[in-house]
Amino acid sequence: MARTVFYTATTLDGFIATDDHSLDWLMTRVPGKDGPLDYAAFIDGVGALCMGANTYEWIHRYSHDAAGTATEAWAYAQPCWVFSHHERSAWPGADLRVTAASVPEVHAEMVAAAGGRDLWVVGGGDLAGQFLDHGLLDEVIVNIAPVTLGSGKPLLPRRAELRCLESMPSGEFIAARYEVVR
Amino acid sequence: MARTVFYTATTLDGFIATDDHSLDWLMTRVPGKDGPLDYAAFIDGVGALCMGANTYEWIHRYSHDAAGTATEAWAYAQPCWVFSHHERSAWPGADLRVTAASVPEVHAEMVAAAGGRDLWVVGGGDLAGQFLDHGLLDEVIVNIAPVTLGSGKPLLPRRAELRCLESMPSGEFIAARYEVVR
Repeated sequence: MARTVFYTATTLDGFIATDDHSLDWLMTRVPGKDGPLDYAAFIDGVGALCMGANTYEWIHRYSHDAAGTATEAWAYAQPCWVFSHHERSAWPGADLRVTAASVPEVHAEMVAAAGGRDLWVVGGGDLAGQFLDHGLLDEVIVNIAPVTLGSGKPLLPRRAELRCLESMPSGEFIAARYEVVR
Repeated sequence: MARTVFYTATTLDGFIATDDHSLDWLMTRVPGKDGPLDYAAFIDGVGALCMGANTYEWIHRYSHDAAGTATEAWAYAQPCWVFSHHERSAWPGADLRVTAASVPEVHAEMVAAAGGRDLWVVGGGDLAGQFLDHGLLDEVIVNIAPVTLGSGKPLLPRRAELRCLESMPSGEFIAARYEVVR
């Protein structure tokens, strides 16, 4: 059975970005290599992904120059649903499905597209929380960076009971996989 | 050289208590036993401790009945500085040193009393942050509970650069020890 996974980096104090959406605290870190929770192993098992509009626009902004020309290719071969109530910046080569449908409807579409592989909720934290609210989030995989920010965009703005399935050092991070306790 | 350590439990999203100071999310957990970061091993190496007034009053409240009679003994043999600008509830058997002095002054008093053993900043997060501000915090040891709260009292309301020295599963928790990068 495919899992729906919120896979993300977080600070030790539970922020996934600064208040002004910066990932400067993350980009300088040395990631783990070849561990079971590393990105390369994870993304191989993903059949569909989704993200909120802010997350999409952040990725878009940091992958294009001031003239709007892409400086980096879209990183995902899988279809990607973007939750938004209006049009979003285009990105040639990206299989984008901008949607205003509900989380359960989109989840069903993602399952149908994923061919038995996992679903990745890329972010932000509130979108992961909406999957949780609907009982549609199975796992949370975090790479915990060795930094505190004191304020920022919250990891998962919900009360959620988890169970740690595995954890290990991973480069400068601690990698940890949790299942959601229902 | 004695270390000054902020040793605490935290949720995965970086809270050390709920908004109304509850630790209900913590008290039900199964702790680790006999690991290098377990409480029993830690407290043996501590020569002096300190806490903020709110933390002290919380411990006092939950260890006394409505008539003000202690239902639990004070847990620490070491001297304990309580940062407060006014008198605090007494506790027979506790070596309490209520102080309005600055963090550096109290730190020096604690070092002198600790006989080469470590100093423990019990909490809250802002007091640990004040030690950090003065360059007087050496380590952060966290036991990360498998739960998110979404809001609450922050672990360490500062931007702080850390380096993970060790991490391991510990009962239901992940135990992790960080040094503060200066």
